[in-house]
Amino acid sequence: MTTTLPAPGLRRGYRASVLHLLGDPHVAPQAYAYFDDGLLIIEHGHVLALGPYATLLDQHPGLEVVDYTGKLIVPGFIDTHVHYPQTEMIGSYGEELLAWLDAYTYPTERAFADKDYARSVAKVFLRELLRNGTTSALVFATVHRASVDALFEEAEQLGMRLITGKVLMDRNAPAYLRDTPQTAYDESKELIAAWHNKGRLSYAVTPRFAGSSSPEQLRAAARLLVEHPDCYLQTHVAENKSEVRWIESLYADEVPPHTSYLGVYDHFQLMTERAVFAHGIHLDDEDFDLLARRKSAVSFCPTSNLFLGSGLFRLDHAQQRGVKVGLGTDIGAGTSFSLLQTLNEAYKVVKLQGGKLSALRAFYLATLGSARALELADKIGSLLPGREADFVVLDPDATPLLAFRNRKVSSIDERLFVLMTLGDDRAVRATYVAGALVHDRDAL
Amino acid sequence: MTTTLPAPGLRRGYRASVLHLLGDPHVAPQAYAYFDDGLLIIEHGHVLALGPYATLLDQHPGLEVVDYTGKLIVPGFIDTHVHYPQTEMIGSYGEELLAWLDAYTYPTERAFADKDYARSVAKVFLRELLRNGTTSALVFATVHRASVDALFEEAEQLGMRLITGKVLMDRNAPAYLRDTPQTAYDESKELIAAWHNKGRLSYAVTPRFAGSSSPEQLRAAARLLVEHPDCYLQTHVAENKSEVRWIESLYADEVPPHTSYLGVYDHFQLMTERAVFAHGIHLDDEDFDLLARRKSAVSFCPTSNLFLGSGLFRLDHAQQRGVKVGLGTDIGAGTSFSLLQTLNEAYKVVKLQGGKLSALRAFYLATLGSARALELADKIGSLLPGREADFVVLDPDATPLLAFRNRKVSSIDERLFVLMTLGDDRAVRATYVAGALVHDRDAL
Repeated sequence: MTTTLPAPGLRRGYRASVLHLLGDPHVAPQAYAYFDDGLLIIEHGHVLALGPYATLLDQHPGLEVVDYTGKLIVPGFIDTHVHYPQTEMIGSYGEELLAWLDAYTYPTERAFADKDYARSVAKVFLRELLRNGTTSALVFATVHRASVDALFEEAEQLGMRLITGKVLMDRNAPAYLRDTPQTAYDESKELIAAWHNKGRLSYAVTPRFAGSSSPEQLRAAARLLVEHPDCYLQTHVAENKSEVRWIESLYADEVPPHTSYLGVYDHFQLMTERAVFAHGIHLDDEDFDLLARRKSAVSFCPTSNLFLGSGLFRLDHAQQRGVKVGLGTDIGAGTSFSLLQTLNEAYKVVKLQGGKLSALRAFYLATLGSARALELADKIGSLLPGREADFVVLDPDATPLLAFRNRKVSSIDERLFVLMTLGDDRAVRATYVAGALVHDRDAL
Repeated sequence: MTTTLPAPGLRRGYRASVLHLLGDPHVAPQAYAYFDDGLLIIEHGHVLALGPYATLLDQHPGLEVVDYTGKLIVPGFIDTHVHYPQTEMIGSYGEELLAWLDAYTYPTERAFADKDYARSVAKVFLRELLRNGTTSALVFATVHRASVDALFEEAEQLGMRLITGKVLMDRNAPAYLRDTPQTAYDESKELIAAWHNKGRLSYAVTPRFAGSSSPEQLRAAARLLVEHPDCYLQTHVAENKSEVRWIESLYADEVPPHTSYLGVYDHFQLMTERAVFAHGIHLDDEDFDLLARRKSAVSFCPTSNLFLGSGLFRLDHAQQRGVKVGLGTDIGAGTSFSLLQTLNEAYKVVKLQGGKLSALRAFYLATLGSARALELADKIGSLLPGREADFVVLDPDATPLLAFRNRKVSSIDERLFVLMTLGDDRAVRATYVAGALVHDRDAL
């Protein structure tokens, strides 16, 4: 098998089983395509064609084909909420959200004022994404401009579609991490000019959360969104009960009575179509309706929600009320970079509430659903012709246990479900970004 | 480094960091021993000595030493609840307990009437235990005598301390899996004669649960325990709310009014000091007190409890009320053979209830705590001189992410916590049973 990088623009085929979602299985259960013996043809970093191997090969005589028979190709995974500086603090013991920020997060993020340090962690972070089959992510940097530059530079080299931004935080945090409404605005503005829409990179205006941004800073964030309407907004909402109570009292004099935590962001005009709110565990149905109306998205981060004891996200409710939902690892409160393992725990979160997360719904969350949450479904999240060629080659038999279990597997649904239950980074045989091989599990 | 099997009786040392628990950290936080540069000396399959490398080597001139510097030796893990026939059905989709038994478990167990088939799965099952550092287990077989013989034979060859038994089930299950009170009694009796206390093997009288055994069969089980007081009793209790309601109504005419599900087992005299009740999620404080009084144990199975949506075991409550608690994977409703991953989810189950499971408490659960649950703490669960030499060599840097994370680790507590958060079978460098190397991760 050839695994060297193709020359730019070279047309190449990949033979494997291929699965991608075409719609939300919650709405349209049959909205997917599966080719047991499939062929995915890539050219110029985009999908040229996808179909049955025999048919498609006939139409492309002389095509060079990489043979991944026995493997399963799916669209690259998309992580809609992750903090790259927290790569080095996964598994920090004992606290719930607010104490956890003070005890672990803030001291860790301090070091990212130094660009070399930031770069060294960015490299590890991106390597971990790719090892786990994640080809796109919406990422928190730190308050430091250098932390953003470092991550964008590294992602650009890899050709990844990546979104990040400087964290805005001007209160209720250590002095060494605080900016001001003005520096927040100015530095974001400069970063947008430098990076937004540069190749596959996009910028996200990034107030950490309502507790660490003053009303004035939230207004500055809104101004940035008005001036750059295709920029993203990312922040946190309703992750933890103490946090919710705190935010609602903190803003009591700033917003109309009975405004919810989410409503605070709406009051400050931050609920855009390109806004992604992480967690949303303690949102009520009214909040979900507001999200649906504004077309803002929630990022569901099950391993993190369990690890911090934050609670159980009401996925079924949110989706039934038309909320766009993406999947997030929330490293470093999350406990795995693997979106397979994240789906394993997503299943459990839904099950504890009496629901069922089917494998197709799960893979939708990790691919097309997250692409839609980022308003990027025309570019990534599926393998339709014209889409950017981000894809993962999964190895269903990656471990002895998976191989043994698969002897009893008879449908693609079952194979996917076993993969998300037992799979991890070892199940990622190879990862391709814009048609280029960027991770090869078996390379020496 | 030498990794060949030692000649029987050969004295050999193992150099590494070594940690073991000496008591319950819930009661005595300092009840552990840790040697950063330690030496564990094994002879005749037992621990001869444990201490600081330099001191101990002086006392044993000429000792042959296997160098595991940089690794961490802990006692072999103990799995107090696992179904070996379900190895091939992990990750079966969608159901809660009772429907899950009907849809997946019973059809799967049918095949274990065939001893060759049972043996083939037993081999894989034991290999997975050892790959994950589990050296002892209390295991459910199936209703078929052959399934018990097959597992005992394979465990005997490996020299493992293992406990299993024929499942008793004479009602509310498919005809092809049902026995009778008499055949249950007779076959158990024969298996006890053949296997109980043979080398390191022990027998467990194994009524599946009160729902699948008639009162007459439960009385037969009690008779077996009276006739063989050092045999174990294993069964399930209060795993699922529908199950609890069903059992309480099923036995309404058999037991005094207001008898709880657990009380049913007590009524039938099954709550011995060697009884292990799996799950116990929906037990109340009165039930916990009864368990403490009878000195029976509960097996806490977090990945399974989440996967089936059964609920959250109240670990803190149970331990505070003096209940013996062991750890279980409950494969196949559990989602991992790894007790490290099981501790990862145990932490989350405790956190969701507002508690904290420290790394020492967690490793206690997986080693000495489970040994105590099985009344085997004089033989396994720690590395005191005289104990059977079941131990695991953990590799704290087993994956690129672990290695990166460990750069920031400064205490043994933190190292253990990171291992149970990010570790899996890859973190098990080697597994020793009675002093013999039975799993070597790096062997070709």
